[in-house]
Amino acid sequence: MALKTKKEKDFSEWFTEIVSERGAKLADVRYGVQGFVVHRPWAVKIIRIFEKLIEDAVEKDGYEPILLPILVPKKNIEKEKEHVQFAPELFWVEKMGNSKLDEPLFMRPTGESQIYPMYGLWIRSYKDLPFKKYQSRISVYRAEHTTRPFLRGREFLFFETHAVFESHEGVLKRVEKDMKICNEVIRKQLGVPFLFFKRPEWDKFAGAVDTFAADALMPDGKVNQIASTHDLGQKFAKAYDIQFLDKKEKKQYGWQTTFGPGIWRIMAALIGIHGDNNGLVLPFDIAPVQIVIVPVFFDENKKLVDKKCKKLEKNLSEKFRVKYDNSENTAGWKYNEWEMLGAPMRIEVGPKEIKEKSLTLTRRDTKQKTKVPEKSLQKEIEKIAKDILKNITKKAESWQASNIREAKTYDELKKILSTYRGFARASFCSVEKDGLACADRVQAETEGGKVRGTLFDKAEKPFGKCIVCGKTAKYVVYVAKSY
Amino acid sequence: MALKTKKEKDFSEWFTEIVSERGAKLADVRYGVQGFVVHRPWAVKIIRIFEKLIEDAVEKDGYEPILLPILVPKKNIEKEKEHVQFAPELFWVEKMGNSKLDEPLFMRPTGESQIYPMYGLWIRSYKDLPFKKYQSRISVYRAEHTTRPFLRGREFLFFETHAVFESHEGVLKRVEKDMKICNEVIRKQLGVPFLFFKRPEWDKFAGAVDTFAADALMPDGKVNQIASTHDLGQKFAKAYDIQFLDKKEKKQYGWQTTFGPGIWRIMAALIGIHGDNNGLVLPFDIAPVQIVIVPVFFDENKKLVDKKCKKLEKNLSEKFRVKYDNSENTAGWKYNEWEMLGAPMRIEVGPKEIKEKSLTLTRRDTKQKTKVPEKSLQKEIEKIAKDILKNITKKAESWQASNIREAKTYDELKKILSTYRGFARASFCSVEKDGLACADRVQAETEGGKVRGTLFDKAEKPFGKCIVCGKTAKYVVYVAKSY
Repeated sequence: MALKTKKEKDFSEWFTEIVSERGAKLADVRYGVQGFVVHRPWAVKIIRIFEKLIEDAVEKDGYEPILLPILVPKKNIEKEKEHVQFAPELFWVEKMGNSKLDEPLFMRPTGESQIYPMYGLWIRSYKDLPFKKYQSRISVYRAEHTTRPFLRGREFLFFETHAVFESHEGVLKRVEKDMKICNEVIRKQLGVPFLFFKRPEWDKFAGAVDTFAADALMPDGKVNQIASTHDLGQKFAKAYDIQFLDKKEKKQYGWQTTFGPGIWRIMAALIGIHGDNNGLVLPFDIAPVQIVIVPVFFDENKKLVDKKCKKLEKNLSEKFRVKYDNSENTAGWKYNEWEMLGAPMRIEVGPKEIKEKSLTLTRRDTKQKTKVPEKSLQKEIEKIAKDILKNITKKAESWQASNIREAKTYDELKKILSTYRGFARASFCSVEKDGLACADRVQAETEGGKVRGTLFDKAEKPFGKCIVCGKTAKYVVYVAKSY
Repeated sequence: MALKTKKEKDFSEWFTEIVSERGAKLADVRYGVQGFVVHRPWAVKIIRIFEKLIEDAVEKDGYEPILLPILVPKKNIEKEKEHVQFAPELFWVEKMGNSKLDEPLFMRPTGESQIYPMYGLWIRSYKDLPFKKYQSRISVYRAEHTTRPFLRGREFLFFETHAVFESHEGVLKRVEKDMKICNEVIRKQLGVPFLFFKRPEWDKFAGAVDTFAADALMPDGKVNQIASTHDLGQKFAKAYDIQFLDKKEKKQYGWQTTFGPGIWRIMAALIGIHGDNNGLVLPFDIAPVQIVIVPVFFDENKKLVDKKCKKLEKNLSEKFRVKYDNSENTAGWKYNEWEMLGAPMRIEVGPKEIKEKSLTLTRRDTKQKTKVPEKSLQKEIEKIAKDILKNITKKAESWQASNIREAKTYDELKKILSTYRGFARASFCSVEKDGLACADRVQAETEGGKVRGTLFDKAEKPFGKCIVCGKTAKYVVYVAKSY
């Protein structure tokens, strides 16, 4: 019951399969509308768990939840001249029942144009600042051409924080904290490594002063932007009239930032980076079922085994998310099923285990079995749980590290992007407007290799001239193909 | 800082005020699109808490979460001939960017037409049954004419379970369990009483065989339908081709039921029934902040008090949701603010309390103060928490009981509905099709009094002839005006 496609052979097909009916049953593309998928129970459960981790993290930083309508009046998008570039991507609602609406409404592509008019009403004084709200458990809508579950949708799950500060300094500090949240949740709890970039001038979020983003490397060597945070300066505040009275009772425009961990994209990373040919491999903290109990019995001892399993389920449930699989399937079928779903640990219980008062724990990531005396079971589970996270993180980190290659010449750059993919690290003339010509040339001549930016948390010295134009290089950039 | 409007004087205006900026800041109607409101943090937090209670309850009953797209292809609504009556209420999406869509899409008014085609794909055999999924944390869209936050919206929060059984018996048992969930969560945890009815033939959900619903009585004597559950028979299964192979390998249509606790309507009941002229009154289990700590100090002992409050917050946070309000507002201002928000308990901490090692607990519902030795604080909080729920439930229950009045004559019925409102209990000829004429007459002659149905959980004997037509009465019905 392993997957038909091998991950190392055809990652793209493997990804499609593991998401589907034949795999872990995460999303169903048979809904009948392109780019709109049905999330099935296992996906909803996983997503709820890590969404909650991010919610907790931003709430700890003082953000409060708000929930806005899905439809936005047409006039709102027209207020910020750069942001209006979302317009061609919008889904329009112009009819209610049989009557035409007075003003067309669009389905939100992101929250700025709906949230900031409210900020304009809510914020009055410096005492209201920093003003920090977030929206989660929502979807946004964009008319994308090619679509894929968890990677690109016309409807996809969204999470956004929006903060207003008294000064630009507040914004810059916030960007660092957003990166810290990515580190704490995505890297440390989900075991998904990434590089955090400052995006080049030409690849910023529409209307932003600066855009910073986390790129995770997928097993096919293409990068997956899993989070981004934007310094909006005062641009949106001016467009949407977000003003506050400062301490001297003078009106000032707020300084803004918005952070968006990509719920779908994080899910794609979890699936793609940790999964193997038998299915998902979930970190313990994220798994909807952390431990599955599988009974192994003959008819004559069924009752005994059943009783033992129930007791074990009850005891372990106090600390963990446990499932006693007492369905009518064979034990072998159950092993395969729960491996496909990525349950981190399995406990087999049969007459032998009952007699010996010791249990066999099988971990999902390495398939390794450990015999554990019943009385030290909880402790052992906690130990293995940590070790699973450590193991899959290490694997992912070392794979990422080995896929960052230094390109000293333009030919090397092209070779890296065509042969190995991953990141090519190169000296580059400029990440301001005047570097765009070089970036465009790279993209055209490498079948889509894009300059992802400069590392945010590490200043790097160029090790040569600009790899494209040969002029003085001021930056080290990372180039990669992307989703 | 109490509310300007008195609840007992003008409930409708009081409700508008408590929801608004001047009250507990729950929803903002200034968004700019009729029937679409912004949920502010306090409302989102309350709703998340009780939504989770319902999620836990249905998951305990074996339901799993799914999440479907917000848009549905036009053809889907046309499959069930009665359900298609939703059509005039739909919001239509016909344009993506600048291009017209091949097939118009509508925003879901409820989930049947999008979920059941998937059920048709997912269900294969009797082994898949009962098949139980639910959708929560979503909104639905209906072109309503008059709209009000939490009572009637063009966009409103939704929760729906959808189960498929092998037989009609499964459906009937499920209806009883749905009522039990209403009892356990809405009545016992939220303290909101209701009557559970079987709706008359003419007031069923579009396409249902039978509809059952919970009506809560609001303080203005109008009823608020807070939940409903429907016996769908095999109607939708036939329309959407939901078939399973039975044990004899014969194809059968599934028997279905759907249950919908009204998230918005429950919120309206919580606000309206428990609230008073100083603001919300929240049951302890539902309150986002269960205990607020307010420091009372002079400049010379500020540090000491601050330290004590922090310690108290830390200790209590292990068990409860606690907020130490160390903002710069005065203590009096804080008292008012947290009363408006309905925080169930307040602890004041000043030098005196520190010295005496005893604290003053003020409960929100009765304003009663209790002096508590610090060491028995946790126990006392738990005791008072229970007592708050008991007290507000009792108040609500006795108010509901005193607003169910027996009508022996048609004049009495009219008088009850015009003078007292609440429920009028009356003998009635029929709740099948042939009773509609009498029901219509009641509605026309009582400014909207509607026959809500017969009690689901109690067979009642008529105590006279039909109150309208004078023919033999087969039922006791409850008549009320409604939202």
